[in-house]
Amino acid sequence: MNYFSSDFKLGILGGGQLGKMLLYETRKYDIYTLILDPSNEAPSKVACNEFYQGDLMDFDTVYEFGKKADVLTIEIENVNVDALEKLEDEGKKVFPSPTTLRTIQNKATQKLFYKDKEIPTADFTRFAYTSEIQAAVRNKTLDFPFVWKSARFGYDGQGVKVVKSYSDLDALPNVECIAEEMVPFKNELAVIVARNPDGQIAVYPVVEMEFHPEANQVEYVICPARIEESVAEEAQRIALKVSESFNHVGLLAVEMFQTENDTILVNEVAPRPHNSGHYSIEASYTNQFEQHLRAILNLPMGSTQSKVAGIMVNLVGAEGYQGPVVYENIEEILKLDGVTPHIYGKKETRPFRKMGHVTIVNEDMTEARKVAQKVKETIQVISK
Amino acid sequence: MNYFSSDFKLGILGGGQLGKMLLYETRKYDIYTLILDPSNEAPSKVACNEFYQGDLMDFDTVYEFGKKADVLTIEIENVNVDALEKLEDEGKKVFPSPTTLRTIQNKATQKLFYKDKEIPTADFTRFAYTSEIQAAVRNKTLDFPFVWKSARFGYDGQGVKVVKSYSDLDALPNVECIAEEMVPFKNELAVIVARNPDGQIAVYPVVEMEFHPEANQVEYVICPARIEESVAEEAQRIALKVSESFNHVGLLAVEMFQTENDTILVNEVAPRPHNSGHYSIEASYTNQFEQHLRAILNLPMGSTQSKVAGIMVNLVGAEGYQGPVVYENIEEILKLDGVTPHIYGKKETRPFRKMGHVTIVNEDMTEARKVAQKVKETIQVISK
Repeated sequence: MNYFSSDFKLGILGGGQLGKMLLYETRKYDIYTLILDPSNEAPSKVACNEFYQGDLMDFDTVYEFGKKADVLTIEIENVNVDALEKLEDEGKKVFPSPTTLRTIQNKATQKLFYKDKEIPTADFTRFAYTSEIQAAVRNKTLDFPFVWKSARFGYDGQGVKVVKSYSDLDALPNVECIAEEMVPFKNELAVIVARNPDGQIAVYPVVEMEFHPEANQVEYVICPARIEESVAEEAQRIALKVSESFNHVGLLAVEMFQTENDTILVNEVAPRPHNSGHYSIEASYTNQFEQHLRAILNLPMGSTQSKVAGIMVNLVGAEGYQGPVVYENIEEILKLDGVTPHIYGKKETRPFRKMGHVTIVNEDMTEARKVAQKVKETIQVISK
Repeated sequence: MNYFSSDFKLGILGGGQLGKMLLYETRKYDIYTLILDPSNEAPSKVACNEFYQGDLMDFDTVYEFGKKADVLTIEIENVNVDALEKLEDEGKKVFPSPTTLRTIQNKATQKLFYKDKEIPTADFTRFAYTSEIQAAVRNKTLDFPFVWKSARFGYDGQGVKVVKSYSDLDALPNVECIAEEMVPFKNELAVIVARNPDGQIAVYPVVEMEFHPEANQVEYVICPARIEESVAEEAQRIALKVSESFNHVGLLAVEMFQTENDTILVNEVAPRPHNSGHYSIEASYTNQFEQHLRAILNLPMGSTQSKVAGIMVNLVGAEGYQGPVVYENIEEILKLDGVTPHIYGKKETRPFRKMGHVTIVNEDMTEARKVAQKVKETIQVISK
């Protein structure tokens, strides 16, 4: 199929900021796009050819939407996989595959997958309900402290909790979950791997998440990671193994820990463009969104090398502000060289809501890091 | 006015490929956009917030459209300037200014403007009608050969003709025109200058148009131009002078000749993002479209420096093909590193129609030039 001249239609499940950035690239390639999103104010609405409002978890909605497209992809994992499976059975191309999505959607099955494929990951125990954990601690099959993770719908910070005592346990929802060994780590790393149906593979440089020294929050995503070459090679090798194990088509972002003794452990994956790859829009020869399109359309993979060093700062809603958003001092950061804001177009801010990101690029990493700090200290996402 | 959080609306006259690329950037900044274009199949239609179909030369259409926006800009010069003047009188911000547009729309007044401002340009004589030229030649106030240019609506090749004899003259339309001295030149260069209402100025590196050795057609736009540093500085100095002379706000692309004795002569200007700046999307810290937005919104100017060398190849319809477009071998060029196609989304090709462009970037200019040649030799815009 020639994606550049036929009546080809690409369907995207989810029309948030990732969908929006993916749509920039579909415009470059002139690909006809359909978006399904529950919100009538979805950021992607303005840049797609056809917009459908509907529940991504509803079988009929996803199935009917999917029938309109030639290739289907996602910008969010929480979609109705049964519908995608039926569409795939009926001959639609669905990337990532429903099987992969099903494995990833549940953190317990995702972790079991790693164990099965001999991919290094922190040890864990699986529980059908949080309430079963107490007995395990009493029976000495589990010790405090550990990391509790809900098996389903765990997002950035929500659904993850360090548990140090019985009272911590009591505060948790009684759901399917895992208790994961606490591994002291030096660095949180990520590697994006892209693969097309022909099996051509492209792997991006390792990026590093730099945390705020006090608040336990990622402040900067830095490419390339400031780590030893041997560690970087190991991280890329493992990321490739994860992609191959899933027989994955499209982008796969693999989040990893570099432990204190330089072991790499896989934390979790995202089978789509990912926050850790946003730097690539300004820094890479082929940005992650274009690469995802190339992969799912079975086009040749593009170069994953960087033109310059890149650092990404998330723009999240400041604490204490809720309502119509204001990007305070955005004009100040535009005075700094190599600074590009990406505003996602959400109308309302609330504390910690992802409202955009800023990329800082520079030939020199040290300089980029300085500018990134200035950006971080200057811009504030508040309300009117 | 805060463009990032208010009910600000940007109106763009023209919704072709330039408008479309400008819209990518409005998405990044989350700017609300209105487009006016005569074609209901305009490439920009899919990426703007509100689309209006209408005649850009019609007073009422432009005036009524303009009233809906807070700031107005253009992606094409042939618009109704009277309407823009009225809008400006009523307090709308219009960039470029209607005065500048009026000067530029007519090649005779544009040339007179350069003379008036002591900006170097080839000598010329102005004629109300082509038919008056014969008398001038007979009276020896003009000699063959010279370059005939129609004063209005002259576009790439159309409206420009080298006249060597009376019979050449007979073939020309009888319209307002100029007869311009033929100046032998080494290089055709261009410099893009951006200026915001506060007067902050940013100037891009000089680019070079490389012509096909036989066909008289630009094959490659190359940044930076492979010329002596002193010539580049002179070209930038003159481009800045042109921008200042117009008191210009927004982008101004200044096309110039480098004569055989290294003099710089201004050929013509475009008061908007321009083909000669397309390389900047992949190569520059701030691409021309983002820079135009920064300028007209009175934001700080971004860095005009390049991350890497950039070469642009236009994708024009091949001779002998007319109808639904096919980009033959596009998958082949995607195998080459640093190659990005931009497909404008026009449904039908015809000989020499601009259908898209391809950017080639590389750390090394010699390598970029080699890849560009491969791209040029590989991809073909044909019809089904």
